[in-house]
Amino acid sequence: MNRIRLVLAYDGAPFKGWQSQPCGNTVQDHVEQVVAGITGEAVRVHGSGRTDTGVHALGQVAHFDLPGNNRMGTDDWQRALNSSLPPSVRILHAEMAGQSFHARFSALGKTYRYEIDCGEVLHPLRCGRAWHHRGPLDPERLRDACALYCGEHDFSAFAANRSGERDEQDMTRVITSTHVDAGPGGVVVTFSGNGFLYRMVRLLVGGAVRVAEGREPLDWISDLLSRVDSGKCQYCAPAAGLYLEKVEYPQSG
Amino acid sequence: MNRIRLVLAYDGAPFKGWQSQPCGNTVQDHVEQVVAGITGEAVRVHGSGRTDTGVHALGQVAHFDLPGNNRMGTDDWQRALNSSLPPSVRILHAEMAGQSFHARFSALGKTYRYEIDCGEVLHPLRCGRAWHHRGPLDPERLRDACALYCGEHDFSAFAANRSGERDEQDMTRVITSTHVDAGPGGVVVTFSGNGFLYRMVRLLVGGAVRVAEGREPLDWISDLLSRVDSGKCQYCAPAAGLYLEKVEYPQSG
Repeated sequence: MNRIRLVLAYDGAPFKGWQSQPCGNTVQDHVEQVVAGITGEAVRVHGSGRTDTGVHALGQVAHFDLPGNNRMGTDDWQRALNSSLPPSVRILHAEMAGQSFHARFSALGKTYRYEIDCGEVLHPLRCGRAWHHRGPLDPERLRDACALYCGEHDFSAFAANRSGERDEQDMTRVITSTHVDAGPGGVVVTFSGNGFLYRMVRLLVGGAVRVAEGREPLDWISDLLSRVDSGKCQYCAPAAGLYLEKVEYPQSG
Repeated sequence: MNRIRLVLAYDGAPFKGWQSQPCGNTVQDHVEQVVAGITGEAVRVHGSGRTDTGVHALGQVAHFDLPGNNRMGTDDWQRALNSSLPPSVRILHAEMAGQSFHARFSALGKTYRYEIDCGEVLHPLRCGRAWHHRGPLDPERLRDACALYCGEHDFSAFAANRSGERDEQDMTRVITSTHVDAGPGGVVVTFSGNGFLYRMVRLLVGGAVRVAEGREPLDWISDLLSRVDSGKCQYCAPAAGLYLEKVEYPQSG
C-alpha cells in the first residue's frame, strides 16, 4: 500500500472547518470526495488536526493510502486534486510517505499565526482574514502576556470543551516560542508548540489582548496558568484571524 | 444642499460591479440602499466610473447630495454607512464637497493596478485577487510593452464595445505612466492616465502579457496603437486581478 502525504492551504471562510461533517462542506470532505472520484473507492484522508469554521491553513498536512492498483505519481496526484478541488483549497505539495508516517500521530509540533487589524476601518480585502480590533493595543503588554505562555503548563484555562470529549484528558502542553510583530496597522502573534487544545490559540490571543487593552493585569494570566482556581479565560478571539502555519515532523527538521 | 464625497474600497468578488443594475447586487445599489435607509428618501450616488464584476477598488470616489433637512456630520455618515454596508464594501473617508465637485466629471485621472500571480499553484488566499498565469513572463518584455502604451493614443484597439454605446465616441486617452514591479512570485502592473475606456486596462495587460510570453512582437502593440488597420487586441486579462487604486481631482494634488 502506498501512502501519500499532502501539504494543503485553504481559505477557511467558505468551509465548516477541516473535520468531516454530515453537511459535507468541510475541507476533509472535499478532499475525500475528490480522492474517491479519482480512485473509484472511498478513501479516508487523515489531517494533522482539526481547524474550526473560518480558520485558515497555510500548511495543513494530511495523508491517505492509495488502493493497491493505483500507479499515479505524486505530481499527477497534486495536479488531479487541484483541478477538482474548489480554488479555496490547494494542494501545495504531495509526496510519498512511509507506512510509519501519520499526519496526526507523527506530528512533533505546530505553528499558528494570529492576525489582528487595529485600523479604524477593516479594509474589505482583510475581511474574514483578521480580527478587527478597534482601539489601541499596547504591544509591550501583548509581548509580556505572550511570554508568560511559553513553557510547559496545564492549559485547562485556555481550552474550550468539545462536546463528547471526556474531561480527564491531559491538558499539559509545551509552547516553545511566541512572537509578537506589531506594526502601525495591527499585530501578528505567532505560537509554536508541541500541541494545542481545542480553541487554545484563540483563547491565548483573547487573554493576551485583554492584558494589552489594560483591562487585566499580567498576574491574571499567571494565575490562569498556575491553576490557582478553576477559572477559565472567557475571551476567545474570532476564528477569522487564525492561520495554521505549519506542522512539524521528525523528517522535516 | 450639502454634497458629500466618499472614498470607498471594495472586494469585487461578491458584486456585479459598481453600476446599478436590476439585480440590485452592485456596489452602487448597496450604497444607495443604505443612504436611502438613513435619509428616508431615494438618493443617487454618483461614482467616478464603473468597475466590472469581480474588479476591486482601493480608492473609488463617489458623491451624493443630502436632503435639506439632514444635519449629520461626515464622520457620522462614515460610521452609519459602514455599520449597514456589507463588510466587503467600506467607506474609507467621507468629507463635505462643494456643488462644483462631481465624482465623475471633476476627475482628472485614475490609477489602476493589475496583479499577476505566476506561481505553480494559486494560493487560496490569492484566489479572486490576481490573474493566475502559469508559465514564465519576461519582465523586460512586459516593461517594454507597457512603455509603448505611454502617451496620447487612440486606444480603439484596446476597448471593448459596451452594448448601447455609440461607436463615434472619441477613443483618445493619455496614459501618463506605467510601472511594472516584477518579483519572484508574480508581477504588479500600474497604469495612470486621464481616462480609461471600457475594459481598457484588462486589454492593455492582456496585450502586454502576449508580448511577455514571447507570442507577439513589440511591433504588434505599436501597430494596434497606430491603427495601421482596424485590428483589436483579443486578449482580455481576467477581472480578478484588477484594482482601481485611486482617482485624482484638482484639489487632491
